[in-house]
Amino acid sequence: MVQSALYEEIDNLYAETVERRRFLHQHPEVSFHETKTARYISDFYEDLGIPYRNNVGGNGVLATLKGGKPGKTIALRADFDALPIQDEKEVPYKSTVPGVMHACGHDGHTAALLSIAKAAKKFQEDIPGTIVFIHQHAEELVPGGAKPMIDAGTLEDVDAVFGTHLWATEPLGKIQTTPGPFMAGADRFTITVRGKGGHGGYPHETKDALVIGAQVVMELQQIISRKLNPLYTAVITVGQFNAGQAFNIIAETAKITGTVRYLRKSAQEMIITNIKRFLDGAAKMHDVEIDLDYGKGYPPLTNHVEEAHLALDACKHVPGVTNVEVCEPSMAGEDFAYYMKEKPGTYFFTGAAPETIYPHHHPKFDIDERALLIAAKSLIACFFAYQEKHEN
Amino acid sequence: MVQSALYEEIDNLYAETVERRRFLHQHPEVSFHETKTARYISDFYEDLGIPYRNNVGGNGVLATLKGGKPGKTIALRADFDALPIQDEKEVPYKSTVPGVMHACGHDGHTAALLSIAKAAKKFQEDIPGTIVFIHQHAEELVPGGAKPMIDAGTLEDVDAVFGTHLWATEPLGKIQTTPGPFMAGADRFTITVRGKGGHGGYPHETKDALVIGAQVVMELQQIISRKLNPLYTAVITVGQFNAGQAFNIIAETAKITGTVRYLRKSAQEMIITNIKRFLDGAAKMHDVEIDLDYGKGYPPLTNHVEEAHLALDACKHVPGVTNVEVCEPSMAGEDFAYYMKEKPGTYFFTGAAPETIYPHHHPKFDIDERALLIAAKSLIACFFAYQEKHEN
Amino acid sequence: MVQSALYEEIDNLYAETVERRRFLHQHPEVSFHETKTARYISDFYEDLGIPYRNNVGGNGVLATLKGGKPGKTIALRADFDALPIQDEKEVPYKSTVPGVMHACGHDGHTAALLSIAKAAKKFQEDIPGTIVFIHQHAEELVPGGAKPMIDAGTLEDVDAVFGTHLWATEPLGKIQTTPGPFMAGADRFTITVRGKGGHGGYPHETKDALVIGAQVVMELQQIISRKLNPLYTAVITVGQFNAGQAFNIIAETAKITGTVRYLRKSAQEMIITNIKRFLDGAAKMHDVEIDLDYGKGYPPLTNHVEEAHLALDACKHVPGVTNVEVCEPSMAGEDFAYYMKEKPGTYFFTGAAPETIYPHHHPKFDIDERALLIAAKSLIACFFAYQEKHEN
Amino acid sequence: MVQSALYEEIDNLYAETVERRRFLHQHPEVSFHETKTARYISDFYEDLGIPYRNNVGGNGVLATLKGGKPGKTIALRADFDALPIQDEKEVPYKSTVPGVMHACGHDGHTAALLSIAKAAKKFQEDIPGTIVFIHQHAEELVPGGAKPMIDAGTLEDVDAVFGTHLWATEPLGKIQTTPGPFMAGADRFTITVRGKGGHGGYPHETKDALVIGAQVVMELQQIISRKLNPLYTAVITVGQFNAGQAFNIIAETAKITGTVRYLRKSAQEMIITNIKRFLDGAAKMHDVEIDLDYGKGYPPLTNHVEEAHLALDACKHVPGVTNVEVCEPSMAGEDFAYYMKEKPGTYFFTGAAPETIYPHHHPKFDIDERALLIAAKSLIACFFAYQEKHEN
Repeated sequence: MVQSALYEEIDNLYAETVERRRFLHQHPEVSFHETKTARYISDFYEDLGIPYRNNVGGNGVLATLKGGKPGKTIALRADFDALPIQDEKEVPYKSTVPGVMHACGHDGHTAALLSIAKAAKKFQEDIPGTIVFIHQHAEELVPGGAKPMIDAGTLEDVDAVFGTHLWATEPLGKIQTTPGPFMAGADRFTITVRGKGGHGGYPHETKDALVIGAQVVMELQQIISRKLNPLYTAVITVGQFNAGQAFNIIAETAKITGTVRYLRKSAQEMIITNIKRFLDGAAKMHDVEIDLDYGKGYPPLTNHVEEAHLALDACKHVPGVTNVEVCEPSMAGEDFAYYMKEKPGTYFFTGAAPETIYPHHHPKFDIDERALLIAAKSLIACFFAYQEKHEN
Repeated sequence: MVQSALYEEIDNLYAETVERRRFLHQHPEVSFHETKTARYISDFYEDLGIPYRNNVGGNGVLATLKGGKPGKTIALRADFDALPIQDEKEVPYKSTVPGVMHACGHDGHTAALLSIAKAAKKFQEDIPGTIVFIHQHAEELVPGGAKPMIDAGTLEDVDAVFGTHLWATEPLGKIQTTPGPFMAGADRFTITVRGKGGHGGYPHETKDALVIGAQVVMELQQIISRKLNPLYTAVITVGQFNAGQAFNIIAETAKITGTVRYLRKSAQEMIITNIKRFLDGAAKMHDVEIDLDYGKGYPPLTNHVEEAHLALDACKHVPGVTNVEVCEPSMAGEDFAYYMKEKPGTYFFTGAAPETIYPHHHPKFDIDERALLIAAKSLIACFFAYQEKHEN
Repeated sequence: MVQSALYEEIDNLYAETVERRRFLHQHPEVSFHETKTARYISDFYEDLGIPYRNNVGGNGVLATLKGGKPGKTIALRADFDALPIQDEKEVPYKSTVPGVMHACGHDGHTAALLSIAKAAKKFQEDIPGTIVFIHQHAEELVPGGAKPMIDAGTLEDVDAVFGTHLWATEPLGKIQTTPGPFMAGADRFTITVRGKGGHGGYPHETKDALVIGAQVVMELQQIISRKLNPLYTAVITVGQFNAGQAFNIIAETAKITGTVRYLRKSAQEMIITNIKRFLDGAAKMHDVEIDLDYGKGYPPLTNHVEEAHLALDACKHVPGVTNVEVCEPSMAGEDFAYYMKEKPGTYFFTGAAPETIYPHHHPKFDIDERALLIAAKSLIACFFAYQEKHEN
Repeated sequence: MVQSALYEEIDNLYAETVERRRFLHQHPEVSFHETKTARYISDFYEDLGIPYRNNVGGNGVLATLKGGKPGKTIALRADFDALPIQDEKEVPYKSTVPGVMHACGHDGHTAALLSIAKAAKKFQEDIPGTIVFIHQHAEELVPGGAKPMIDAGTLEDVDAVFGTHLWATEPLGKIQTTPGPFMAGADRFTITVRGKGGHGGYPHETKDALVIGAQVVMELQQIISRKLNPLYTAVITVGQFNAGQAFNIIAETAKITGTVRYLRKSAQEMIITNIKRFLDGAAKMHDVEIDLDYGKGYPPLTNHVEEAHLALDACKHVPGVTNVEVCEPSMAGEDFAYYMKEKPGTYFFTGAAPETIYPHHHPKFDIDERALLIAAKSLIACFFAYQEKHEN
């Protein structure tokens, strides 16, 4: 059976998969600047003789392998951008680029997907349907690479999309996902209170932007505590507050930036409406101007229920998988969300905890590379499970 | 000298002064209902043969004694209303009216002024100028009796006005006043937040008037801390907050009542402007209606600087006075303020602490009756000091 | 087949089911005082010849019908207490007890369960296993009747428990439940701020309990907005706030009562910990005493996942059911929760919307009585589905 | 008469007074680094032949002129430090030192005092008592130069101290002061909230220092609105609030710096007590550490009542003075306060508004140099008035 053959081939390719992952790890590129990485990927397909397009919606690379048997067209997605973080690990494959690092495992995603391609090429004749390899740039930075790749036709003729994220905080062998909302929508906002500064001893001659700003922060809490349906999930985090130039001078302006996380569009809409209303009210209260710059980020990643169950079931039988779990949604964002708005499919986490765990985006982040095997096989498992389910 | 003669006569009248005070104490009447007290006063002038008018601006009584010597026309004022408080003292002269009590010393003010009248009548020929006896009703209850008595002509031909308040928390022998602002303006407000009630588990379907009300209370603090000139004096006290019908039902309305105290008109104006602005802002924030019912009470009582110094100096020589002091302004209100807006003069406190002190408006409030002598003589002292200063 | 025969018998009994429901509706009794209702129920079982116990854990009645076939012992539960609400409906079966009313449908629950008993008695020989009829008192009032009935042995030998609530806000024909957390845990708290009152113009001589109370209300919001896992569900509602005696006197005490709703025990624990911590902090801040009286109410009602799916499936085939739905959890509380902590089973809602819908606990609350048929048959369906699943 | 002679001599010296002021203006030195200025001053006294000490308590210079007639020893004080501000005026006497500027008029104070010395030297024989010339360094920077100069014996044998500040926002010809509290005590505080940072979507895993900081800012308002005697004057201004590193990361720490202004020591004590108590409470509430670094600055400058009246009266007769006014206290701080804690005396403002007014500490700050004449003569007037009052 070809699925088993592919699993075996993935095992055979392990050494070079690791090599490729480490090469990428040493040569990271930040979002929207991943030109060398894109070249590396397209060269790989060139060498394999698998047709591909590059510069898809930016630095994206799209390869297509048509199997010898009839079947559905299923896309598998790996992102390949790195982060503006200085690598602080002491390993031979440490980043060679100062201030840039694969601190979120996208190098591993790419290496795993390339090995799937290589294995699939070998067994092309026996493969049902078509595999679309989506190598996506710029996942880390809004507006992301998924949207423009979709706009450039990536999902044309695609029946379903699967993807996985190596998850360094969960043990090797664990697969996690959840039907329905799986990862949060993530927006960004900046509030600027424009008051009137002045001498610290004469508050009545000023409009104290700092106190108004503090009041705004406190009032935003009510949006979550009183305006949000308690059965819904949403967070308003004010991450930064900066006001004032000197301890004894009343602040002219206060700048407040934050993020909104949510799992349902209606919660996002409610929050935007209320932030606007609260700021209008506070401005009226204090006779000041308060500006809101609200930037919508990735929407919530909502797994398709049927495909999520299909993936959960399929992964149970993947070698090395010891634990398949319906987990709680993650409050992180992910532009895989855009694929899920267009096509059936699911996204899942592949446990990849190394001996010493550092969280994603940490300067010492790393993975257990054996997870590359599980990630690759799990995507293959999803591919075949979907084919089986939809063959008539 | 007639001033000394009057002092002596006041001493002679002490027993009946006390008797009159005690009679009034036993027969208290609440503000705007002091008809029997007014009759008692006018009968007294009738008996003395001093011309008087009654029903002046309500229950007020106005008597005029023209002295035999030339001089200014000076009004002396005593208020005569009682309070809706149950007398809890155990004394022979305890109030006979259930739930009504002279708990602020106005009985003493009246008794002292009547004795001045009786003494002055005896020495009428030697008295310079004219004494106007203002027996004022309804000091305790806004809009008060002073304003309508003035509107009814009380201050026509009057050159100056003096008055005193027996002060039970200061020792006998002390006289206190301050040039300029002496007692606070006192307003009343009611804020009603009209939200939308509902089930305690579904806040998002409601507009929680209670939380909005609490927010309003917190925000009002900023008017004092940030909008008021720190060199000015003002207080916003929310005295009552009532919201909600059950622990598990979200409140539809919140009712908030309070008082504003201030010493300068500009502070009052600033506060009213800002309360309105704050409530408008909070209403906009929460998309609710918030009503404000703001009732202006007595204005600040601002003593005339020259007359205040004149009184301080004059009282130093009054028998029994041991201590004359420029004190800090009081945050209590007093409708003597209206006289000070029309005519020169001053208001002062006459120490009257009994053995066991209870504060004004307390159910066990009482005074040291010897203060009646000092109050009467101090007013006489002011009268003569003013005459002397203005004789040419 | 006996299940169909029971359905048919339920239809045959419709007129008397309605009659019994209306009798109960006319004779409501408030929680813990339902002695006549309990007598009515036990008389019914007496007449039927079904063995029963009364005074079970209070006014509870427990009847047991042992079928002629082997099988599991399954309890069906109906509550029978009414509410202290004045019936304002204009119907012939209006409550005859002033100020007391079946405003939550418990009369219907009871009537439906009695008819199941009567029908089951008729086909006793063909019934597999045993039916336990739990007629529970005092659902509306913490600590409720479920707990003492369980303590009195109600669930001994019982394998599973099912129950339903007539739901007047959902259309006839709809059945709703959800696997896992289905109804909220509901606690009650009272916070008393003990400050120091005083004259409205002298805040510095007081400890203003009203402002401290308002601050506490605002700070409680943070427990939900910042301390609660955003994936969890919880509400803190302050339903009542009362402070102060007069607009111009600073409040000595503030009394704040509210409810906490939650779906997971860990959320409840977090909230209690933080309310305590917040109040300790506020007390320290203002050098006052703040008392917390926290009363735990019913725990969350967590349906067993397997039995919930069993009920959803079973109800699909019940005559009259047009719509079976996994719904969102309800934030209302329900002491059926205690049965679910002891035994497998599920609770579900039976749509019962009349022409004009009034919410539960409304003075004009009523139901479409045809829902009694669906409620009875759905419970029967659960009974048989469970028997089938567990027959070996 | 010698006073008139001195006035005349001051007029004669006007050109060189201006020249000296402009020289100092071109060569400003910041607080505690005024070595060249100190040398300039001591050289001046050296040349005049007036005995002096330098390095008094730092860079201070103290000169003493004993008059030929008997009398009191009176000190006149001028400060001489500049500010770290870039001079942006376009005038020939613009600062030659980049980033340093006489933006508060101390150059003028010094020039005026030097001319008094020169004039006095000329008429030394006729001068009653002794003039002590206090040339004080470091007024602009806490802990200031006044305290160490006093500690170094500056006020030994001194009977009274007078000083004036050129006041660029008041018109030429105006003299202002107030008996009692005249300039505010000014302290500085830094609050550091040490919470626990984390991912913006997971607030429950953190202790959000930013929200806690905002809450602290709001609560500080209550110290002024509810804890301060409304008859007292105090301000708490939070001038700076900085928290957080990124919009989507919950802040680990918040740093809040501010100033406290007050006119009475008891208000300062109350504020310190309450800030501590509030922070302790907030720390307890949120289970975090909150550090307070409270630095006391200059105490309030409290003019001696008698000497303030003496100065007001004396200045009325100074040529060029058109308006002598009891003004409201200033909320600015001034280390002349320390002299007033030791000796009788008063500080006053000398109007010095140029054609275009810029506030003190503004990069374009300047004065009308004719105010130098008035400042010098007013100090002379105070000197003679005090001598006259105290001659026996």
